[in-house]
Amino acid sequence: MKKLNPPRVILLLLLLAGPLAAADARREIRFPDLPGYGTLKCDLHMHTVFSDGQVWPTVRVDEAWRLGLDAIAISDHIEYQPHKDDVPTRHNRPFDLAAGAAGVHDLLFPKGTEITRDTPPGHFNAIFLHDVDPLDTPEFVEAIERANEQGAFVFWNHQGWKGSEKGRWMDVHTTLYENHWLHGMEVCNGDQYYPDAHRWCLEKGLTMLGNSDIHAPDRNEETTPRLHRTMTLVFVKERTLDGLKEALQQGRTAVWYRDQVIGRRELLGPFFQACVRVAPPHLRAKNAVWTKIENTCDVDVKLGRTGGGGPAQLVLPARTTSLVKIGVADPAAPGELSYAATNFLIAPEEPLPVTLQVPK
Amino acid sequence: MKKLNPPRVILLLLLLAGPLAAADARREIRFPDLPGYGTLKCDLHMHTVFSDGQVWPTVRVDEAWRLGLDAIAISDHIEYQPHKDDVPTRHNRPFDLAAGAAGVHDLLFPKGTEITRDTPPGHFNAIFLHDVDPLDTPEFVEAIERANEQGAFVFWNHQGWKGSEKGRWMDVHTTLYENHWLHGMEVCNGDQYYPDAHRWCLEKGLTMLGNSDIHAPDRNEETTPRLHRTMTLVFVKERTLDGLKEALQQGRTAVWYRDQVIGRRELLGPFFQACVRVAPPHLRAKNAVWTKIENTCDVDVKLGRTGGGGPAQLVLPARTTSLVKIGVADPAAPGELSYAATNFLIAPEEPLPVTLQVPK
Amino acid sequence: MKKLNPPRVILLLLLLAGPLAAADARREIRFPDLPGYGTLKCDLHMHTVFSDGQVWPTVRVDEAWRLGLDAIAISDHIEYQPHKDDVPTRHNRPFDLAAGAAGVHDLLFPKGTEITRDTPPGHFNAIFLHDVDPLDTPEFVEAIERANEQGAFVFWNHQGWKGSEKGRWMDVHTTLYENHWLHGMEVCNGDQYYPDAHRWCLEKGLTMLGNSDIHAPDRNEETTPRLHRTMTLVFVKERTLDGLKEALQQGRTAVWYRDQVIGRRELLGPFFQACVRVAPPHLRAKNAVWTKIENTCDVDVKLGRTGGGGPAQLVLPARTTSLVKIGVADPAAPGELSYAATNFLIAPEEPLPVTLQVPK
Amino acid sequence: MKKLNPPRVILLLLLLAGPLAAADARREIRFPDLPGYGTLKCDLHMHTVFSDGQVWPTVRVDEAWRLGLDAIAISDHIEYQPHKDDVPTRHNRPFDLAAGAAGVHDLLFPKGTEITRDTPPGHFNAIFLHDVDPLDTPEFVEAIERANEQGAFVFWNHQGWKGSEKGRWMDVHTTLYENHWLHGMEVCNGDQYYPDAHRWCLEKGLTMLGNSDIHAPDRNEETTPRLHRTMTLVFVKERTLDGLKEALQQGRTAVWYRDQVIGRRELLGPFFQACVRVAPPHLRAKNAVWTKIENTCDVDVKLGRTGGGGPAQLVLPARTTSLVKIGVADPAAPGELSYAATNFLIAPEEPLPVTLQVPK
Repeated sequence: MKKLNPPRVILLLLLLAGPLAAADARREIRFPDLPGYGTLKCDLHMHTVFSDGQVWPTVRVDEAWRLGLDAIAISDHIEYQPHKDDVPTRHNRPFDLAAGAAGVHDLLFPKGTEITRDTPPGHFNAIFLHDVDPLDTPEFVEAIERANEQGAFVFWNHQGWKGSEKGRWMDVHTTLYENHWLHGMEVCNGDQYYPDAHRWCLEKGLTMLGNSDIHAPDRNEETTPRLHRTMTLVFVKERTLDGLKEALQQGRTAVWYRDQVIGRRELLGPFFQACVRVAPPHLRAKNAVWTKIENTCDVDVKLGRTGGGGPAQLVLPARTTSLVKIGVADPAAPGELSYAATNFLIAPEEPLPVTLQVPK
Repeated sequence: MKKLNPPRVILLLLLLAGPLAAADARREIRFPDLPGYGTLKCDLHMHTVFSDGQVWPTVRVDEAWRLGLDAIAISDHIEYQPHKDDVPTRHNRPFDLAAGAAGVHDLLFPKGTEITRDTPPGHFNAIFLHDVDPLDTPEFVEAIERANEQGAFVFWNHQGWKGSEKGRWMDVHTTLYENHWLHGMEVCNGDQYYPDAHRWCLEKGLTMLGNSDIHAPDRNEETTPRLHRTMTLVFVKERTLDGLKEALQQGRTAVWYRDQVIGRRELLGPFFQACVRVAPPHLRAKNAVWTKIENTCDVDVKLGRTGGGGPAQLVLPARTTSLVKIGVADPAAPGELSYAATNFLIAPEEPLPVTLQVPK
Repeated sequence: MKKLNPPRVILLLLLLAGPLAAADARREIRFPDLPGYGTLKCDLHMHTVFSDGQVWPTVRVDEAWRLGLDAIAISDHIEYQPHKDDVPTRHNRPFDLAAGAAGVHDLLFPKGTEITRDTPPGHFNAIFLHDVDPLDTPEFVEAIERANEQGAFVFWNHQGWKGSEKGRWMDVHTTLYENHWLHGMEVCNGDQYYPDAHRWCLEKGLTMLGNSDIHAPDRNEETTPRLHRTMTLVFVKERTLDGLKEALQQGRTAVWYRDQVIGRRELLGPFFQACVRVAPPHLRAKNAVWTKIENTCDVDVKLGRTGGGGPAQLVLPARTTSLVKIGVADPAAPGELSYAATNFLIAPEEPLPVTLQVPK
Repeated sequence: MKKLNPPRVILLLLLLAGPLAAADARREIRFPDLPGYGTLKCDLHMHTVFSDGQVWPTVRVDEAWRLGLDAIAISDHIEYQPHKDDVPTRHNRPFDLAAGAAGVHDLLFPKGTEITRDTPPGHFNAIFLHDVDPLDTPEFVEAIERANEQGAFVFWNHQGWKGSEKGRWMDVHTTLYENHWLHGMEVCNGDQYYPDAHRWCLEKGLTMLGNSDIHAPDRNEETTPRLHRTMTLVFVKERTLDGLKEALQQGRTAVWYRDQVIGRRELLGPFFQACVRVAPPHLRAKNAVWTKIENTCDVDVKLGRTGGGGPAQLVLPARTTSLVKIGVADPAAPGELSYAATNFLIAPEEPLPVTLQVPK
C-alpha cells in the first residue's frame, strides 16, 4: 500500500520564438512608493559602441525593460571614442537610435552625455539635454555651463575613482557649485562606494546618485537582492521626464548598492516603514509574543537591537516573512522595538534608527 | 580611459547559525484574495513516520511555513503502519506532536486521518476531527459515519489511482453521498489529475481538492510557478479553522496543479481578474496601441485569442510584466479583448473564457 | 541536549573587480573525445554591429570563452548592413577587431561571412576566408565561386527558414554541389531544425552543422544540458585551424540542438559509448542485479528498451549517475542490454541503436 | 532581412513518476583520487528519529546517494532519545532499517553510535561496531572501552561546542589517548571549526574528521562549491569497509568545510596537484605568456603569490578554466610559480605552499 513518493521532477526546455515569450517579460523591482511620491528605479550612466561600450544603443533599452528599470540615460563620452575608426563621432546618435524603443517600452529616457576630462577635475554626466554637440568644446567649465544653459541636471561621476587624491574637491568644483551648475554626485558607481562623495552630498545639499556605468552587455537576467545593478531610486511626484527632473533637482533619491540602501534620513525613514510590515502577534505566552514581520521589498533588511524586547540581531531576507519572538513584560502590549537598520545608511557608517511598531 | 566592465560577481557562502537566518524565512505564495474572501493555500493530505511517511510530524510544519502554506493536515493512515514495530500505533500522536509548532508558525492545523481500505471503494481523508481513535473500526461505512459524527470534512483521495476501473463510482459512494457524508474529492493528488473526479465534483456539487500526499521530506526550498506542491486554494470569510471548514463545505476552492488552476467558473473568473492587471496604453499609433499587462500571481497565465485585437497567443509569466501590442481600428478606444485562459480549467479540457479590459 | 540543526545558510554577494574574478572563468562543455579525434565545440554563424547584430565583435569572443566554445566564426552579412549609416561597410573589420582577443583566449577563429541573397537560393556561410571583399559581387554563384577560390568551407544556412517551399533544392544548388562548391548545411539554426537539410546531408554526403545565428548579446551565463547554444561538435585530428577545416570537409561533425544530438551513425555510436559508463553490478539477487550508469556528458541521455533485461525507459540526466536494476536469468552474467537512444538521431526521427555492455 | 534573435527560452516543468526520473540521479562530487589511493566522500555523524533527528533512517541513504557521498554512518545518541515515548529505544535499529537501502545504493555504511555524556568530557562517535547495546553502560570510560573491544574507530565530536572551556583536554582524554581508545577528532562539525581540535590532531597524531551532525532533512539537492555538507575525504587503498577503516586509522583524511580543505601537508600537497591543471602557454609575447589553468574539483582554489611571475591573487572557481597572464623574463621558459593556497589549511591559519608548474 506504498503511496507515491514526492513528485519526481525534471525541468525540460521549451524554446519559443513567439512574439511574447518569457524572455521578453519584465520582472518588476519591488520597492515601495512613499506617501505622496512614486518610486522610480533609475540608472543614469551607461555606455554603447558610440563611445567605449560594447553594445548597440537599443540593447540598453532591452536590458532596462527586462530588469525592471523605469528610467535610463545613455551617457557616451564626448571626448573618448575608441571605436571612432568604425563608428564615427555623432554625439546625439545613441539617443536617437534608442528613443523609439524606449517609447515602446515606456521607459523615461533623458538624453545624456559624459563630459570626460582629466582627473581631476573628473568626469561629469549631464542629462536632460536637447543637443549634445554644443558641449563638445575645449574648455571644461564652458562645457558644464553649456549643459546648464540647456537646463541639464549635472552630476560628478565616480569621484573616488583612481584614488581619493585624484578625487579631491578643488577650486573648479567650487566654481561649478557656486554657479549652481553642479547638482549631484555619484555616491556609488558599479561596485564602488565613495564616502567623500557621500559626505559632500550631505554637507552641500547635492543629490545622491548610484549608477552602473556599464560598458559590456549586462549579464544579469533578473534583478535580485544580491545581484543587481547599482541604481538610483528617485521619489517623484509624477512619472514623467519633468517629474524625474524635479525629483533629482530636489534631491529626493536613494542609492541601492550591493546589499545597502543609502540616502537622507528623512527619506530612508518612510522608505523603511513602507518596506517592513509587522503583523499583530498571533501567539502570546507569559513573557513573550510571536509575530510575523514581512519584508516586502527587494533588499534584505538587517537590524541590530538598540532597545529591549526583540532579538539582538534580525535579518529579514528580501520578499520573505520572518517569525519573531519578542520578550515582553506584558504580552498584551508588546509596543515598540528600537533597532538600527545596519544596511540603511544615512551617512557614512551611520545606520538608520528605526522603530518596529508591534500592533495590538 | 577605459572604465570598469560591468561588475564581476561571485557568490560567496555565509553559514549563519543565528536565530533568524534566511532559511527560516517564509516565501509567501502570491495568489490574490477575492472580493469578500481571503485566499488560503492548503495541503490537506500528507504523511509522517506514524504511518508510511519518512519524517517526524514537526517537519511538515517547518516545510509548510517555508513554502508559504497557510493550512495543512497530517493524515496518517489508520490501517497501515509499516513502521509499527518501531513506532507503535497512536492515531492522535502526529497531531499532538506538531500542534505546538503549528501554533508558533500561525498555521491552521485541523486534525486529520486517512481511512485506508481496499480499492475500491478507495481511500478517504477526514479532517477537523476531535479524536481519530473511534474511526479505527472494521466497517468502512461506519468509519466514515463516525468521522461525520465529529463534524469532519470528508473527501475521496486520488480517485483514479491504480486505474479508472478501480476508481469507479459504486453503490457505497452513493450511500455516502446521499447521507451527506462525502463532501469533496481530490481532483489532483501529487503529480496526477483525475478527470472523472473533476467531472463528478461539478455534477454532484462536491468540493474540489488538490493535495500533495507527500511521504518523503519535501525537496523544494521554495514554491515557484513550475515547481510547487499540488495544493488547494480555499477562499475563506475568515482566517480561522471555522472559516476554513465553512469554505470547504461551501466548495469555495480551486486547485493549483502543475501549471494549471482548476476550479468552478464563478470562482476562477474573479480569481483571474485579480491576478492580471492591464495598464492604460502608454503608446498609440495609427492602428495599434502598446500596453503593459502584469501577472501578479505565482502561476503563468496562458491565453489564446477568441476575439479580435491582441496577439493570437499570449503567455504572461508569473510575477512579470509583458509588453503587448494591440491592433485596433481606433487607438483611442482599444476596448475589450476576448481570450480563453488555456491553463485555467472550469471543466476537463475546458478553459476559462476571459475578457481583458484595456483602460482608456 | 538538542544539537544543531543543519546549517542554516544564506548566500551573500561579493563584488570583485580583480583581474581573475569568477565571471571571467570558463565552464568547459563536457563532451568526450572520440578514439583518435578531439571534440571541438563550435558555433560558426553569428553577427555583430557590422551587419545586423547588436554587439561589438569582441563580445562574441568573451561569450565563447565563458560558455566553453572552442571555435567560432563571425559571419556578418555582405549585402545587409542596417547600421551602415553609423558603421560603414567594411567586410573584414569584425574579424580584425576580434582576432587578438580570440588569440588571447585560445579560440580557433576562422574568418567568415554570410552571403545573403534572396530566398531562394538562400543564405550561405563561407569560412576560412582570407579576404571577404572579393565576395561582394552581384552574381550569387560568382560569390560562392570566389569563396571556393580562397579554399573556403561553404554551407547553406537555415534551409527551411521561411517555409519549405522557399528552402527547396533548385538547379542553382545542383550547380554548386556538382562543382564541389557546397560542403555542408545547417541541420539546425538557433531554435529550428530542418528535416530536409538533415536528409540531404545524408543523401549527398554534405557536412551537418548546427549554429546559433545569434544577433543579440548572449543571455546565457553557462551552458547547461537544457539551455545552450545550438552548436556543431567537430571531431578533429588536431586542434588547429587546419584540423578544424579538415574535419569539416570530411563531415566529422554532430549537432547539439536542444536536448538532441544529431549525426552520422558511425560517429554517434562511439560518441554515445564515450558518454555513458556502466559499472560492474554492485549487488546481485536471484533474478536481478543492481548497477550504476554514469552519464559523463552535458546532454541528458534518453533510452527506450529494444531488447530484454533493463527498465523499459531510462533517462540518464547529464553529469549524473543513475541506479539501475536489471532483471536477469543469471545474475552472474547480465550481459548486454539493447536500447534505442531516442534523443540521438542518425536520420530524421530515427534514433541511434545502442548496446549497454554490463561488465562482469 | 532581420534574422532571428537569440532563442527565447522558457523552462517548463515536466513531472515524471517513472522508475528512474532525474531526482533519483546522483551528482558525483568532483574530488580527485590521489596516487595510490581512492578518495571517498564521507559523513560519519548524523541522526534519525531514533534519537533526536527528524527523519526515518532510510532518508539518510537517499540523501547520501543524491549528494554524491560514498560512506555514511548513522550515529544516534545512546543516552538521549527525546522521541522515546513514540520510538522506544533500540540502539541497533537505525542501522538495521537502512542497511538494505545502503547496499542497493552501494554506500559504505558502518554501524555507529554517539556516546553522549556530559560536557566535559564531551560526545564521542564510535563506528564499525557490531552491536551498540554493550555501550549502553553507566561508566563513560567503560563505554569507550567496549567500543574498542569491538574494534571501533572512536572520535571526539564537536570539541569546541559550548565554548572552549567546556572543550578542554582533561585527564580522562589522556586516559583514552594513552590506551589508544581515541583515534580522531572532529575538526569541523556542521558550520563550526575548532582550532584546538585541529592543533591536537596534528600534535597527537589523531585523525581529522569533518561531519554534518545533521538532524533535520537535508535541504540541499546538490553539492556545490559553496553549499555542501561538511564532510571527510578519506584516501583509501580499497573501496570497502575495511579499506575505509584502515584509512581512518592511518589518518589519511582531509576535511571539506565551507570553502576550505583542511588536512595534513603530505596529503594536501598531492591533493592540490591533482585538482589543478596548468596547460602549456598558448600565447607568448615579449615579456609575458598566457596560459589556461583548470580547476577540476568542487572547491574554489584561492591563491596568493609568494614568488614572482603570476598575478598577485588568483581565484580558480570550482570546475572552471581560468585565463592567466604570466609575466616572464623569457617567454620560452615560464617555469615555476610559487603561491600559497589560502583556503587549503595545513594547520590553523597556515595555508598550503604550492608550486604551479607551467609546462613548456
